[in-house]
Amino acid sequence: MEIHILRLSHRLPRDERISTHVALVARAFGAQKIIYSGQHDSGLEDSVSRICERWGGNFEIEYSSSYKQIISKYKKQAYSIVHLTMYGIPVQDAISKIQSEKKILLIIGSEAVPGDVYRLSDYNISVTNQPHSEVAALAITLDRIFEGKELEDTDFGGKIRIKPSAKGKEFV
Amino acid sequence: MEIHILRLSHRLPRDERISTHVALVARAFGAQKIIYSGQHDSGLEDSVSRICERWGGNFEIEYSSSYKQIISKYKKQAYSIVHLTMYGIPVQDAISKIQSEKKILLIIGSEAVPGDVYRLSDYNISVTNQPHSEVAALAITLDRIFEGKELEDTDFGGKIRIKPSAKGKEFV
Repeated sequence: MEIHILRLSHRLPRDERISTHVALVARAFGAQKIIYSGQHDSGLEDSVSRICERWGGNFEIEYSSSYKQIISKYKKQAYSIVHLTMYGIPVQDAISKIQSEKKILLIIGSEAVPGDVYRLSDYNISVTNQPHSEVAALAITLDRIFEGKELEDTDFGGKIRIKPSAKGKEFV
Repeated sequence: MEIHILRLSHRLPRDERISTHVALVARAFGAQKIIYSGQHDSGLEDSVSRICERWGGNFEIEYSSSYKQIISKYKKQAYSIVHLTMYGIPVQDAISKIQSEKKILLIIGSEAVPGDVYRLSDYNISVTNQPHSEVAALAITLDRIFEGKELEDTDFGGKIRIKPSAKGKEFV
């Protein structure tokens, strides 16, 4: 399945690390690309590119000054638009429909998401209705979409590879 | 099951938001308490307490200047020590053993985890062996322990409660 992430309203310095975590979770859990809007941040792009260079895979990061243009572009390309929000319907209730889609744009908000994002989305889904973290919400959503298989596919063919170990650190 | 979280080496201002997300995921996904070491941060404690006050539940946050004392104390109280690390064995391979424990101290590191944490832990487990986020790793681990039931138990009896909605924001 093709899954691209749209991270809204990136703010400097406030979101530096959270957006990096969002991007790395997207990559590690099987998405192909992240697009972020808000403030341009070459540090974020460099961090993600450095991880890809060392740890492998073809994950991409891209900036757009207009989330509306991105949503519109993806709609034209027949992507299903899925917005993660604590106000949405439970992910577990929507997951079978979402899994039947072939191409998904997964929108991850920040604190104040514009109303049109709710309206433009095909699905507004929540990972619990308690306040927690967009990083966790993204991880759980991708985990449900891929039914845990993303935890098995951990070899991205990178220069660095870890050998799982009961005590300590080992590399392949 | 009783699950307490130990967040290591909190650094200001670098970890402010990540540690807040760790704490909120712990609360939303069914843990009872978080203890953090590193730098003391009353802002972190206030954020978490404010969430509990408005959104309900009995989640606690506590500071300790010594993670070693905390681990030692929990070991004496027969808690099983589970350390989340990208170098560990896959969570899916260890989960049935972990689920058989009654009391767990779940350790969440930061960038450089001291070697003794690996040795003192009963389980060193990983959520993929790719670099991503301790927030995501915590969410997936709690989700596996509770087998997704934490996504159903979203009413903490707080002053604020959300009514899940397909389009927009609704409160109970």
